[in-house]
Amino acid sequence: MTKSVDLLLFNAIVLTMDEEMHQYEPGAVAVSGDSILAVGPEDEVLKGCHAAHEVDCGGKVLMPGLVNAHTHVPMTLLRGLADDLRLDVWLQGYIWPVEREFVSPDFVRLGTQLACAELIRTGVTCFADMYYFEEKVAETTAEAGLRAVCGQTVLKFPTPDAVSFEDSLAAAREFIEHWKGHPLITPAVSPHAYYTCTPEILRATAQLAAEFDVPLHTHISETLLEVENMRRDNGMPVVPYLKKQGLFDAKVLAAHCTHIDEGEMRTLLHAGAGVAHNPSSNLKLASGFAPVQKMLNIGLDVGIGTDGPASNNDLDMFEEIRLAAFVAKTVSNDPTALPAVTAVKMATRLGARALHLGPVTGSLEAGKRADLILVDITGLHNTPRFRRDADNIYSQLVYAGKASDVSDVMVNGKWLMHNRELLTLNEKELKLHAQEYARKIDVFLMAREQSVFSKLVALGGSAEEESFEVQVKVKLKDPAPVLKAIKNTAIDILVKKHYHQHDIYFTFADPEQGWLRYREDEMVDDKEQITGVRGRLTLIGPSREGDFAHDVLLSRIRYFAPAANSLRFYREYFKPASEIAVDKDRLRWLVRYKNEEFFINLDRVETPELGYYLEIKSRTWSRRDAEEKADCTSELISLLGGQLENTITLDYVEIAGGKD
Amino acid sequence: MTKSVDLLLFNAIVLTMDEEMHQYEPGAVAVSGDSILAVGPEDEVLKGCHAAHEVDCGGKVLMPGLVNAHTHVPMTLLRGLADDLRLDVWLQGYIWPVEREFVSPDFVRLGTQLACAELIRTGVTCFADMYYFEEKVAETTAEAGLRAVCGQTVLKFPTPDAVSFEDSLAAAREFIEHWKGHPLITPAVSPHAYYTCTPEILRATAQLAAEFDVPLHTHISETLLEVENMRRDNGMPVVPYLKKQGLFDAKVLAAHCTHIDEGEMRTLLHAGAGVAHNPSSNLKLASGFAPVQKMLNIGLDVGIGTDGPASNNDLDMFEEIRLAAFVAKTVSNDPTALPAVTAVKMATRLGARALHLGPVTGSLEAGKRADLILVDITGLHNTPRFRRDADNIYSQLVYAGKASDVSDVMVNGKWLMHNRELLTLNEKELKLHAQEYARKIDVFLMAREQSVFSKLVALGGSAEEESFEVQVKVKLKDPAPVLKAIKNTAIDILVKKHYHQHDIYFTFADPEQGWLRYREDEMVDDKEQITGVRGRLTLIGPSREGDFAHDVLLSRIRYFAPAANSLRFYREYFKPASEIAVDKDRLRWLVRYKNEEFFINLDRVETPELGYYLEIKSRTWSRRDAEEKADCTSELISLLGGQLENTITLDYVEIAGGKD
Repeated sequence: MTKSVDLLLFNAIVLTMDEEMHQYEPGAVAVSGDSILAVGPEDEVLKGCHAAHEVDCGGKVLMPGLVNAHTHVPMTLLRGLADDLRLDVWLQGYIWPVEREFVSPDFVRLGTQLACAELIRTGVTCFADMYYFEEKVAETTAEAGLRAVCGQTVLKFPTPDAVSFEDSLAAAREFIEHWKGHPLITPAVSPHAYYTCTPEILRATAQLAAEFDVPLHTHISETLLEVENMRRDNGMPVVPYLKKQGLFDAKVLAAHCTHIDEGEMRTLLHAGAGVAHNPSSNLKLASGFAPVQKMLNIGLDVGIGTDGPASNNDLDMFEEIRLAAFVAKTVSNDPTALPAVTAVKMATRLGARALHLGPVTGSLEAGKRADLILVDITGLHNTPRFRRDADNIYSQLVYAGKASDVSDVMVNGKWLMHNRELLTLNEKELKLHAQEYARKIDVFLMAREQSVFSKLVALGGSAEEESFEVQVKVKLKDPAPVLKAIKNTAIDILVKKHYHQHDIYFTFADPEQGWLRYREDEMVDDKEQITGVRGRLTLIGPSREGDFAHDVLLSRIRYFAPAANSLRFYREYFKPASEIAVDKDRLRWLVRYKNEEFFINLDRVETPELGYYLEIKSRTWSRRDAEEKADCTSELISLLGGQLENTITLDYVEIAGGKD
Repeated sequence: MTKSVDLLLFNAIVLTMDEEMHQYEPGAVAVSGDSILAVGPEDEVLKGCHAAHEVDCGGKVLMPGLVNAHTHVPMTLLRGLADDLRLDVWLQGYIWPVEREFVSPDFVRLGTQLACAELIRTGVTCFADMYYFEEKVAETTAEAGLRAVCGQTVLKFPTPDAVSFEDSLAAAREFIEHWKGHPLITPAVSPHAYYTCTPEILRATAQLAAEFDVPLHTHISETLLEVENMRRDNGMPVVPYLKKQGLFDAKVLAAHCTHIDEGEMRTLLHAGAGVAHNPSSNLKLASGFAPVQKMLNIGLDVGIGTDGPASNNDLDMFEEIRLAAFVAKTVSNDPTALPAVTAVKMATRLGARALHLGPVTGSLEAGKRADLILVDITGLHNTPRFRRDADNIYSQLVYAGKASDVSDVMVNGKWLMHNRELLTLNEKELKLHAQEYARKIDVFLMAREQSVFSKLVALGGSAEEESFEVQVKVKLKDPAPVLKAIKNTAIDILVKKHYHQHDIYFTFADPEQGWLRYREDEMVDDKEQITGVRGRLTLIGPSREGDFAHDVLLSRIRYFAPAANSLRFYREYFKPASEIAVDKDRLRWLVRYKNEEFFINLDRVETPELGYYLEIKSRTWSRRDAEEKADCTSELISLLGGQLENTITLDYVEIAGGKD
């Protein structure tokens, strides 16, 4: 009996990627509407069908389209923005500030179009995304004709598209309701990662995903630091913690899993979760080597993803497939690990399963959607072809194949690329618009990079504040008289504290930038025990506001921020010209004198060895107030036995730096 | 003063890759004859020159051509032949047998042409090669117009182009004499590796290279096994050993250096040796992660190579550059390691220095040869472009650039590719001829793969031999009477031995293949000490030649070979359907009886537990001789107290396999 079909593809090397890994050469595929009607040897398929259109595949490989299992497509617009940086510097220093400034529905639309063009060119028919304004990603992807699982991001911080977690969860619900049932788009919710979400967010997103039976797409154990922090804070690795929050009530797609153990793998397996392995991103950000072969052995559906193009820096799945095979071999010290055939499986059938789209796509089988590509394997770089072994063909695709070998792409029965010509997108226009964004971002960052202040502000957080200080400082030969005087005089002591202070001052080539001080305050109790450590970042302006009588200084402008990151982070981010260390032991009294509050610091400066100093400081907000306080500080110096002729207006960093 | 120049390239982003890493945008390069006359900002260069021809580079990147620091170009014809195998199985099981059968001057010429076409297409202007018939590589490369260091291979084994080391050394001398001074080809000598050369070869090749002041190109410490063997045999790592042999009297190009320590790096540095790092090959063959960042820190000239296309499987330097950066980051747990700019340096200036061609090529500087490429960085996959940082451009090339972005290639002042069209090679013809070779190799290997015997022979070595045996075997309840009888009867004992024998029999789906036995003989002395171990491989034919009186068996055809490789090797190479283990304790006497020699074996079969057997064996060469000996063996059984009604004609493997 002959069936009528819309389209017949013949004269191809058909790689079905079905469970039995059938190959047909010459093979044919019959398509009706959005679906595959038949796959098999050419003569059998031809005999059984009457086709409205026929396409001679010219001996090319006809295979399922590739599945990019984890990405952030709009980030094409940030590719190459900042590279060779540590994850924290890269994210907090560059990506997040730029996203705060530029990410909008328009940005997301253009970035998605650019990505779709690249994805189609490289043979991808389906991808899993996670970003902001995900409705724009969904809409644009559907227009471009690609299949995608689109995850609306939920975070505990404000995002470019939501001021609070509640807003973003409500938006996710609306998004899912709107797109559920679309032929190309599977809506999903994306709690970003455990460390950017609260347990409440994890639970709420899992319930939302379960309610609508849509995937939940999240990052799991990308870096060792993340796992170590989890262990420290919760006494368990990441997967059990997520299980405890009910995350696996949903159909989970877990990106990365670079650092999970066998127990966690089994938990993922029992939860029916899919994994997205991202070799380029893991290598480029030095996140580590994911235990891919082990995950496959255990039976997990491990797909392959590019991650966002800002950390890759492209969307080339051919490169990822090759890398997945390469890295697994060396890490397991076994060149037979993750052979080419398995790598192709991961990028097709297993990837589709990881996205919970197994019944829909990922292999060429009757009943599945017609998501397929043609790959020319006769290129110079892929010549000659050996045919001794059925696996030779996968070897050709994986070890010598290039994304540019893809000539034709069909999704859901519709051609998106034909003879290397895109049919749904205008590349030339996209490139022009993208370049305009890059120009604006360059201007924004170049302005910022010229100013340490702007870079400090760009790190975000609301703790920065301006401060003016009146201060006077005298060198002491002996601290004993001061200690005695402070008890005996009529000074009202409000608080007394004891610190070890470790300061690193960053200096910059342009002295107008001032100094950036990274301070670790170790708080010391009466028994000389350290009771706590506090990190603080202070930008000290370069210019003095004025000097008063007896070298009282109306100090520089200062911006304070809690030092949430490590010294290493600030070093890499601010790139100082040099560093000056100042360590001291400080006794600090907050006192009231003539109805004003003052700080009295008795310092022993140990690095460099500068000896003892007495310092009186007071916050001030106007020049007049400052003048009044300047008189008081001089009086206090005298009261405490300091010699006013020994006053110094330099900061310790200036003395340490040789200005003394 | 205006100079006359042959060619002016303008309107380019010029990346000089000189010591100061000058960039000019828009920049220009003036070429006269084979050399660069000027490089600089477009207006300056234009002002100073009057050009016969001008080329508008259309805003593309103009940079030095890439240097592929280690490859075996003719192996393009073997790409994809066999993958996902261990190095020994891959080499001994596939590559070497195929090379023995197919490598000829014609093969080398075609393979080199195919490689040159691919190298030009991917932006390579210079490469370091090592293969057989290297004069054909040199001649073909010169015709194609590329620059190369061509190393004639010297090995202790017979090679496709020489029957002995002396022949191949003489050929190397002739080769060097012939090519020395050629504008494109630098002849070199290539002792393959320490483990394939004798100390004498290492010394002789170093002296030859020093005599002519040409490079010596060799493999150093590619695998951990190689280093471990060296330590075991010579008590030192590889580099000191090579130093001891005088290897560094020559200008060395050391490929791989995957497993060298800091001391070895310093030795290489002081010897002025260059290093070729091969990331794809090291990953694909699971050789390990080379300590690249450390070598660079120490100051070594580390270039990047693809290795041969049979272990890569292509010649794509863009992929290697990216991988070099990627892998160094994750291995050193530091994403700032080996930044993009360094990766590009390695592929250009450092690579040229590693090849001892630093003064000639590797950067765009006045006086150097005009070896340059144009790269289009406006592709979809490389959009948008950020310009905030001077290093952004290297990031684009490394992390998102593709070999197919190269549009034009010039070597020695001559265009080899223009607007992606090859000017010196005919790709279509090359592909046809290459496919014809692949077809022949497929036929050869498919025939071989059908026969365990052929696969055994393909491993090479001359030890295989056919053997016929007369044998009779009886089961014993108690071995004591035999031990007593052998001393007391008139049997002339020539030799007595004691072994523990550990046998693994491979069985195959097709019983006609027989069994392949891997035997480890542990020799035991009078004090029950193991004095030596010997491995032996025996192919036991499936069919019996005939049975005689009293179940005397004229045995199967057997092929013997020393088991030079591990059980693991043979398992992966022969892919048996199943394995049967037989362990036994054997007392063996070589005796003379009636003027014939016989072996008497008294066996205690321990795995499986079969008990005691007495076996009499004798080699035979004709049926008549066999019949006479069959009578003698029956007599011997009786003499030694065996019961002739207990004779068995099965081999132990048959009993163990359940045939009893």
